[in-house]
Amino acid sequence: MAMSPTSASRIVASLLDEELIKEVHLSQGEEVGRKATYFVPNEHAVFSVGVEIDIGIIRVGLMNLVGDLFVDHSFKTETDEIEKVVEFIERTVSNLILEANISSDRVIGVCVGLPGLIDNELGIVELSAQFNWKQVSLQQMIADKLPYNIYIDNELKLKALAEYVSTSLSYENVVMIGFGNGVGSALITNGEIYRGKDNVSGEIGHMTLDPYGVHCTCGNFGCLQTYIAVDFLLDEASRTRPIKNMDELVESYKQGDRLAVNIIEKAATYAAIAINNVVCAYNPDAVFLSGCLIEDYPEIRALVIEKHLNSTSFPEARSFELQVTQLKGNGVVQGAALSVQRKFIKNLYFKDGA
Amino acid sequence: MAMSPTSASRIVASLLDEELIKEVHLSQGEEVGRKATYFVPNEHAVFSVGVEIDIGIIRVGLMNLVGDLFVDHSFKTETDEIEKVVEFIERTVSNLILEANISSDRVIGVCVGLPGLIDNELGIVELSAQFNWKQVSLQQMIADKLPYNIYIDNELKLKALAEYVSTSLSYENVVMIGFGNGVGSALITNGEIYRGKDNVSGEIGHMTLDPYGVHCTCGNFGCLQTYIAVDFLLDEASRTRPIKNMDELVESYKQGDRLAVNIIEKAATYAAIAINNVVCAYNPDAVFLSGCLIEDYPEIRALVIEKHLNSTSFPEARSFELQVTQLKGNGVVQGAALSVQRKFIKNLYFKDGA
Repeated sequence: MAMSPTSASRIVASLLDEELIKEVHLSQGEEVGRKATYFVPNEHAVFSVGVEIDIGIIRVGLMNLVGDLFVDHSFKTETDEIEKVVEFIERTVSNLILEANISSDRVIGVCVGLPGLIDNELGIVELSAQFNWKQVSLQQMIADKLPYNIYIDNELKLKALAEYVSTSLSYENVVMIGFGNGVGSALITNGEIYRGKDNVSGEIGHMTLDPYGVHCTCGNFGCLQTYIAVDFLLDEASRTRPIKNMDELVESYKQGDRLAVNIIEKAATYAAIAINNVVCAYNPDAVFLSGCLIEDYPEIRALVIEKHLNSTSFPEARSFELQVTQLKGNGVVQGAALSVQRKFIKNLYFKDGA
Repeated sequence: MAMSPTSASRIVASLLDEELIKEVHLSQGEEVGRKATYFVPNEHAVFSVGVEIDIGIIRVGLMNLVGDLFVDHSFKTETDEIEKVVEFIERTVSNLILEANISSDRVIGVCVGLPGLIDNELGIVELSAQFNWKQVSLQQMIADKLPYNIYIDNELKLKALAEYVSTSLSYENVVMIGFGNGVGSALITNGEIYRGKDNVSGEIGHMTLDPYGVHCTCGNFGCLQTYIAVDFLLDEASRTRPIKNMDELVESYKQGDRLAVNIIEKAATYAAIAINNVVCAYNPDAVFLSGCLIEDYPEIRALVIEKHLNSTSFPEARSFELQVTQLKGNGVVQGAALSVQRKFIKNLYFKDGA
């Protein structure tokens, strides 16, 4: 929407006042007359912290106002007990800020991303199957330990936001699909995370394909994730001989083991179905594939793309770009830190009443 | 967003100027002091026209600025030939405006809703399986005949907009599902139709359930609509004995005919799956059921709701309201007329640069 010059001046003055932007004077060669004044973000004005927690691991990062994640660490964790995880978050975030030598009043907030059904408004983990947490007030538990604004959110939604920002915001509707211990998706539309009523949109892993299919952890039968998610693949594979993990299954696949080939082929077929179904629902400009099955196993990634290309898809839905995530392991941390900045900037803007 | 008093006054002045709103003075009993001035829409200022075309029928309606569809007709049509349909639209819309005795410069536009993949920006019918139209420049063909702003759009998206407006705009995310000759859905979020890249979001009828399932008209196998849509049900039913139409099938169902009961039970099971899958994708506040299978056959409607209630659904997704559309037969016409008004008002607002 257009903004009046008065509003614009008022906002610029207030941003200068808070040292969030700085003036730059560019002298343009021999030109005569008044020099133009530009305003650029003051990258050291404020900082946001992104945290990712997952089974056995915690990642933290510090982002400046121009979007650089300039410190970034990951640590193994030994327990998924909620109190211990919260202590670990407290310690790693405090150390991060100490290490970067930043005054704590410059830290605008900390966002923690994790897998599961996360009520981002109430700050509650409704259900995280991975951690086996139910109805945990994670935001409050962290806020009791750390003197910052604390937020929590679903990891895939944050990662999709990071992907959207890192691809130069060039798509209007972007979907990220995660294939891993579960199957999920996240839509960014109009530059914002599409959340739905309870922040549980995109739970495509629980779309029913077959009402008489395999029993899912959610209580339903034949959910999409029963055909693809890691635990279900290992369960199936282990019926004839013990298979410990995906590495072992993929190794057997590479050696042409019939059982492993059948299981991985079937999973890839259903991953291509997941892509089709997401496209039917959201009609996106681009779909980004992510998750350990895609990111850690090039063989599976190639097979999923091949199955997708060979499917006779709904014609109009063809016109989207299929890409593999370009984010490194810190995608969730990036998205978490970005989401804090976006809240901060939105609040500034509204505060000003423009 | 907050608006400055200056911007507000400027907008009010321009609306008064164009006679889109009028002043009302309310005298409040014995109160002393300046009387308050209210502004209300001038309902006769401008009018929009909604049109629905479907196989064998055309519906038209005229809406005033307070959202009343105050004239509303439907006519049988004898052909689906594109030129004849355009002529029919021209004739019925012209008659409608004559009948209402409105000066044509008060008509802000005409929107035509129809089933299929409709590029609303380019005004092209990409594909309408019902009409057997492909790549038809419908908007231009109508604009060549009628001296108004012409728009075209997907009927279900328009109907969802009408439902959203008629339920007092009280939901943030509303999905309408249509069960009829196809299966589709439409999402209204943040008060707007969610369109996706090509206005073909919500094509849930082409979500794949079974890669080795029944062949669909789109070229794929095992699409959701192959389990539910009218033509597929009649095809299946006719394998053992000829069945002409849904009325006949439902009549057999009511008489307890084993074949009819099995087919309708299966369709209702998959309609409940469609509801679940839509909820997984969009996490809406409310789902409205519509389409001929729901609106014309109370027995099927009841069975679909029963199957939904008996399914062990993904727990968090339970918290939505399931409703049957409250719109009468003119839902698409209402939505079409509303969509013209929304474009008109948005243009006014932007024109003012506020």
